[in-house]
Amino acid sequence: NTLKGNAHKTPFKELLAFGHDMADLTGKAIIPYFRTALSVENKATSGNYDPVTKADRAAERIIAKALKARFPDHTLVGEEYGTKQGTSPYRWVVDPIDGTRAFIMGSPMWGTLIGLIDGEEAIFGLMDQPFTGERFWSDQKASYLRVRDGKPKRLKTRACANLKDAILTTTHHNLFLDVHQKAVLARFESTVRMTRFGGDCYGCCLLAAGFVDIVIEPGLKTYDIVALIPIIEKAGGRVTSWTGGPATDGGNVIASGDPKLHDAALRMIGKAGG
Amino acid sequence: NTLKGNAHKTPFKELLAFGHDMADLTGKAIIPYFRTALSVENKATSGNYDPVTKADRAAERIIAKALKARFPDHTLVGEEYGTKQGTSPYRWVVDPIDGTRAFIMGSPMWGTLIGLIDGEEAIFGLMDQPFTGERFWSDQKASYLRVRDGKPKRLKTRACANLKDAILTTTHHNLFLDVHQKAVLARFESTVRMTRFGGDCYGCCLLAAGFVDIVIEPGLKTYDIVALIPIIEKAGGRVTSWTGGPATDGGNVIASGDPKLHDAALRMIGKAGG
Repeated sequence: NTLKGNAHKTPFKELLAFGHDMADLTGKAIIPYFRTALSVENKATSGNYDPVTKADRAAERIIAKALKARFPDHTLVGEEYGTKQGTSPYRWVVDPIDGTRAFIMGSPMWGTLIGLIDGEEAIFGLMDQPFTGERFWSDQKASYLRVRDGKPKRLKTRACANLKDAILTTTHHNLFLDVHQKAVLARFESTVRMTRFGGDCYGCCLLAAGFVDIVIEPGLKTYDIVALIPIIEKAGGRVTSWTGGPATDGGNVIASGDPKLHDAALRMIGKAGG
Repeated sequence: NTLKGNAHKTPFKELLAFGHDMADLTGKAIIPYFRTALSVENKATSGNYDPVTKADRAAERIIAKALKARFPDHTLVGEEYGTKQGTSPYRWVVDPIDGTRAFIMGSPMWGTLIGLIDGEEAIFGLMDQPFTGERFWSDQKASYLRVRDGKPKRLKTRACANLKDAILTTTHHNLFLDVHQKAVLARFESTVRMTRFGGDCYGCCLLAAGFVDIVIEPGLKTYDIVALIPIIEKAGGRVTSWTGGPATDGGNVIASGDPKLHDAALRMIGKAGG
């Protein structure tokens, strides 16, 4: 990547600190809307139910403002307001509320996603859950979880080489729309030890923490996954598309805690048909 | 009920205080096991995956000990150790970890259920989530939610008279086993605005809090539901069997935030066939 010269490099610790600062701000902005009577706007033009909350938009505006003040040349890719193109190879990819359906029903299974791409590579990720006080993030060496004022704990995915032993999560079965996606879900459901629905970003974080073995999601957007990639990879897991390619652009994505399991899962997807 | 004389009556506030004391104790007992490497025992004799954690059993032993010390004549109905019959019409019905599958995958969507039946009627209920610090409970007048050291807030179900506008939760689609249960779920899924999976007791508490409109669950045990009945009813909702009878013994259970919605839901169940 010709853009990747030393000229653009910002010390990682400054990027990391900025990520945490943004999460502090978004958490404060979002919490007043959680479990209050929300006027849910429906931004979907199709028949899909796709709620957007005021909180989502307020938080993204806060991120945009903070980024403009701190790193005005960085690009911002957001869920709500699209892309604000900068001149730097750094691209912040954010989703203020990943799991809007969980949010509107008062469940804590949502999170704020803040990811950073340098050129082509996701180099930093953070997931903040301001209601439970959980924050998952990565640095250049490892991934961590801090719960409220507790000490950060280093995350490590667990060993689980066989599909039949795996715990799998995915957000919801009706997101698997086409015949191939449905066939893949059916194969996993009939093979793994246990399937649970309703995760959004939470499922990937629990995978990084070693309590979930596989996450499969169909039709993700880039802002649904970029922040989660370094959290999973620095904890020892793998994240790819269903065909083994990069997951940074979203699409059909699979994450595994154990690289051996990932290989087995990709083989099974290849045979799923549909 | 001939057992219901004044002779057995304990002031409600003493029962309420004891319920909270038990939840304080069980929370402390359970939390050290949450998100640690668990040795999950499998108590199922059939092929169903039904994990039991050490935490579940430790917490139920603590409840049994506390009850024996405080109200030795009360009956205890527990998930793990069955019924300890007392001579009083008071029956404490407890499930230390409702949502064991959520628990073993590190998700906070589980809770400790402590309910009290006097004769035939559920007169007190409490759901404690010691990780998030949430506690839902009822007294003789109302239902409440307290989050950590915050003030208790009174809960109120929301108005939602029409099935097409309702948000529905249920724990998992594969708990709907027979053709009637499957037909009922299918009717609801194709009728309501939104269906989310993965609630266990949490779904009923969010219904009491006015964020969810319907919870349907097939094949519940008494300890899965007794504690939740007063929490829902004192917040303005209804809980019955799928045929409109009492829900205290479990079985196929439906809860609605709006009584009008409950009537509509029962009518739809009656037509679901299967």
